[in-house]
Amino acid sequence: MTDHHGDARRPGEILADLPEATDAGLRFVGVIRTPFATRADCPRRGDAEQGPDCRIEVAALYEPALLAVEDHARIEVLYWLHEARRDLLTQSPKSDGAQRGTFSLRSPLRPNPIGTSIVTLLRREGRVLVVRGLDCLDGTPLLDLKPARCGYAVVAPDKA
Amino acid sequence: MTDHHGDARRPGEILADLPEATDAGLRFVGVIRTPFATRADCPRRGDAEQGPDCRIEVAALYEPALLAVEDHARIEVLYWLHEARRDLLTQSPKSDGAQRGTFSLRSPLRPNPIGTSIVTLLRREGRVLVVRGLDCLDGTPLLDLKPARCGYAVVAPDKA
Repeated sequence: MTDHHGDARRPGEILADLPEATDAGLRFVGVIRTPFATRADCPRRGDAEQGPDCRIEVAALYEPALLAVEDHARIEVLYWLHEARRDLLTQSPKSDGAQRGTFSLRSPLRPNPIGTSIVTLLRREGRVLVVRGLDCLDGTPLLDLKPARCGYAVVAPDKA
Repeated sequence: MTDHHGDARRPGEILADLPEATDAGLRFVGVIRTPFATRADCPRRGDAEQGPDCRIEVAALYEPALLAVEDHARIEVLYWLHEARRDLLTQSPKSDGAQRGTFSLRSPLRPNPIGTSIVTLLRREGRVLVVRGLDCLDGTPLLDLKPARCGYAVVAPDKA
């Protein structure tokens, strides 16, 4: 995750003058609690096996939508990357300096900063899900939960 | 995919009186072209190996964000399910009549109707990606593209 908030532009970055974000509206349906208080604390990628326990707190209005969620061991979580700037079309991640398009990166900086993660559901406590596999900031707004797709299996993580 | 548009409520369904969807705003960044003209035509789940070729047409403004996207064989696609009603907290899919919470279903009917699919990139033609693995309606608005996560591998689809 790059820490890239100001207006400073790195070499190779292209910024867009984007239209108002009003094609569709979102409702936050809860909040995600993680041990990661700043973006520097966030790991690059959540670990659904070894990562810390995190809490997904669903707002009371949406509690009925959790019915039978505990039937699923792996859940796809969608959330709003509320601190991300949205105008970068190309980016130069620090790791290699090469210019890449935002659509060829999983950077949180995107025209529509929606994060997606597959988590392991450890348990449900009322309208709270205790999970592993998240890498987002504490306080991140929740957008959606759905069973992870069939057809994909977890494989051993890269050694790198 | 249920075809469930009107105000008729099925047994076991709970509707919410939801707040305005104004916590965050989205920008459509392109459009998805599929052979599926109506919801009845849409398969239940896109097949990234055998499904029909579909076209993801990125808007001209966002073309720079495609730089190097062709380095990735599998891409996660986020899109807006623009025909979906958003107030169902529980649903009773026709297949078994059981009541389930929306967050334990992959139904398109959700408080924030964002679809996610993993597709196989066949080729790029300028600002069009030709892919397999989509199951959404022709004309679906595009929200985002990002490389599929590492750590997941395709497994053989269910026989069912």
